Amino acid sequence: MTPNMTARPPADIGVSLDDIDTPALLIDLDAFERNLRRMGDAARRSGLALRPHAKTHKSPMIAHKQIALGAVGVCCQKVSEAEVMAHAGIKDILVSNEIVGRTKIGRLVALAREVRLSVCVDDADNVRALSRAAVDYGANLDVLVEIDVGANRCGVAPGTAALELAGIVARAPGLVFAGLQAYHGPAQHTRDYGERGAQIAVAIRQTEQTRELLSSHGLDCRVISGAGTGTYLLEASAKVCTELQAGSYIFMDGDYAKNRAADGGPFGEFEHSLFVHTAIMSRPTAGRAVVDAGLKALGVDAGMPDVSGLDGARYIRASDEHGIVSLEGPAQSVSIGERLNLIAANCDPTVNLHDWYVGVRDERVEALWPISARGPGF
Amino acid sequence: MTPNMTARPPADIGVSLDDIDTPALLIDLDAFERNLRRMGDAARRSGLALRPHAKTHKSPMIAHKQIALGAVGVCCQKVSEAEVMAHAGIKDILVSNEIVGRTKIGRLVALAREVRLSVCVDDADNVRALSRAAVDYGANLDVLVEIDVGANRCGVAPGTAALELAGIVARAPGLVFAGLQAYHGPAQHTRDYGERGAQIAVAIRQTEQTRELLSSHGLDCRVISGAGTGTYLLEASAKVCTELQAGSYIFMDGDYAKNRAADGGPFGEFEHSLFVHTAIMSRPTAGRAVVDAGLKALGVDAGMPDVSGLDGARYIRASDEHGIVSLEGPAQSVSIGERLNLIAANCDPTVNLHDWYVGVRDERVEALWPISARGPGF
Repeated sequence: MTPNMTARPPADIGVSLDDIDTPALLIDLDAFERNLRRMGDAARRSGLALRPHAKTHKSPMIAHKQIALGAVGVCCQKVSEAEVMAHAGIKDILVSNEIVGRTKIGRLVALAREVRLSVCVDDADNVRALSRAAVDYGANLDVLVEIDVGANRCGVAPGTAALELAGIVARAPGLVFAGLQAYHGPAQHTRDYGERGAQIAVAIRQTEQTRELLSSHGLDCRVISGAGTGTYLLEASAKVCTELQAGSYIFMDGDYAKNRAADGGPFGEFEHSLFVHTAIMSRPTAGRAVVDAGLKALGVDAGMPDVSGLDGARYIRASDEHGIVSLEGPAQSVSIGERLNLIAANCDPTVNLHDWYVGVRDERVEALWPISARGPGF
Repeated sequence: MTPNMTARPPADIGVSLDDIDTPALLIDLDAFERNLRRMGDAARRSGLALRPHAKTHKSPMIAHKQIALGAVGVCCQKVSEAEVMAHAGIKDILVSNEIVGRTKIGRLVALAREVRLSVCVDDADNVRALSRAAVDYGANLDVLVEIDVGANRCGVAPGTAALELAGIVARAPGLVFAGLQAYHGPAQHTRDYGERGAQIAVAIRQTEQTRELLSSHGLDCRVISGAGTGTYLLEASAKVCTELQAGSYIFMDGDYAKNRAADGGPFGEFEHSLFVHTAIMSRPTAGRAVVDAGLKALGVDAGMPDVSGLDGARYIRASDEHGIVSLEGPAQSVSIGERLNLIAANCDPTVNLHDWYVGVRDERVEALWPISARGPGF
């Protein structure tokens, strides 16, 4: 296989910002560490477990830091992510997703012999396939029934459908019925806090009613997992979830920052700590700069990135390898070779484009962490 | 460094479609080879050189196939792509982009000692930096002046600005003025063929006038490089460009296929040969399936993918690891575990998410090609 020259780190430890090759994925280590501590503290105060989502960072280095500050383990979305985390010593992993197909299920149960592993289900045939594999490999697998509390993605309906599936899980050899997965993705991005609160109130009520229904049939939910960075305060105060799955708080997406918090102001608990560091490669007109970060360095599904700390500069268009930045006023003084820091609207798919985090403190590169689980994931 | 489990190939040679792990990036080898031959034949008939863009595939395996059918070399967008191609034996590479910064320029000229290498410029200071490095490393670098023929991205204005910069290149030690880069990106995606033709007519006129102006000052353009999959027939018949840079024709993006050809019908010369192969992982309601290919397996910047060969199925929403497919009519018979083939609206950023091509013929895996230059690129 041809060596992939693009997989080498874009900097050396100790160099200054200008010696980082571009485009690169920068972590402001001070801001990042404050974010880690703030969520760790918030979870501790709430009495709920924190199980951060590793799909955000895909990095065991970061997972270990979260656990050192009190997290009980991590969530993963793919078996391949769980494998990377387990091989790096993470001992408690929830695959917060349905796992389908012989190959994936085999790898899942093989991993369940090595670490504490939970998985979500929303289909009876899938439960039977998981059970057969667990028995076959001599593994014990914790299983959460995923209920659809408004996200309109995966999950069975709350109430009787969940009860029926939980019963099938509880009777299945090799599987342990552990509780519910109740995550409301779209609510994370609802701009108005009151509206977000109303969506989560419905989700919490449905989850609580399902928990009570199951309990009345002898099926106790040891775990109810849910919440994200945009709603975790709501779930924390409702105390129906037993654990919080927030992930994005470590980096703070551009889109999340546009949410409104309880007091009506901008979402203020967390800081932007992740930046796509990019160089200006062309200055064709007074009002236009072209940077070397386009669709292959930035997720733009939730909109164009913000330009950090340069008034009058707006990233207006992305092509595969280029970004067009419109310039007004003093921003027009930028020249070829200068660096800009971009705040991605959606961090998760942005991280997934890169192979390395470049950790920066006091204008110097202090850490290089591989994005070990990068990729579409199996 | 933790091994990246997601970088292993998603299939073994010889297995059937159902044994490919999902999501995977499939090439229909028959369609792909027909596309390769069609463009090779079209370039030969036109008398223009074909220099396909390797940013599309990032794979030396595919570059070698293009050269075997008559291509003179490849285009790259990044030095790291050029390095991967050069190390795999590609001897003639145009970096169809501006290369800025000490590190990148050093790598570029180092590579220019190994293979025939050309680069684009649109700034006098950048020309001087390239010249110093070329002299320093004892390299000879061919340089094209990029002119902006309507794309509003990089490039100097056609005419006198191009003349001035070409003169600076021609006088710069270590550099050889080779000609012009004149690529109109947005025109590739103009739906109406007449309108596209009008845009390219302007671009061609500006290019021709610039060529004549330079020639009248003793600066001959040996190379004029341009064109893409959406417009190559226009450039081929105008014969102002000396080489065609089309890249997407090998895979045929969903978006390109929505273009209208000369006869008013859908763009018909090339076939879709690239598919994101995905499994249904949840069937929560009659009208909804969830597949395991979302933003980390698919570029959605140009819109949602089309579902190939399943009437009534529409991919309507992508989250990080999930795709929501709405189902109508007979499509509602699909069940968990079944596979769908998705046609990405924009192939280049989709390819860049994956580590392997899985080549398929007669329902069997026949090739596994690494996407060796995957990544944001340095």
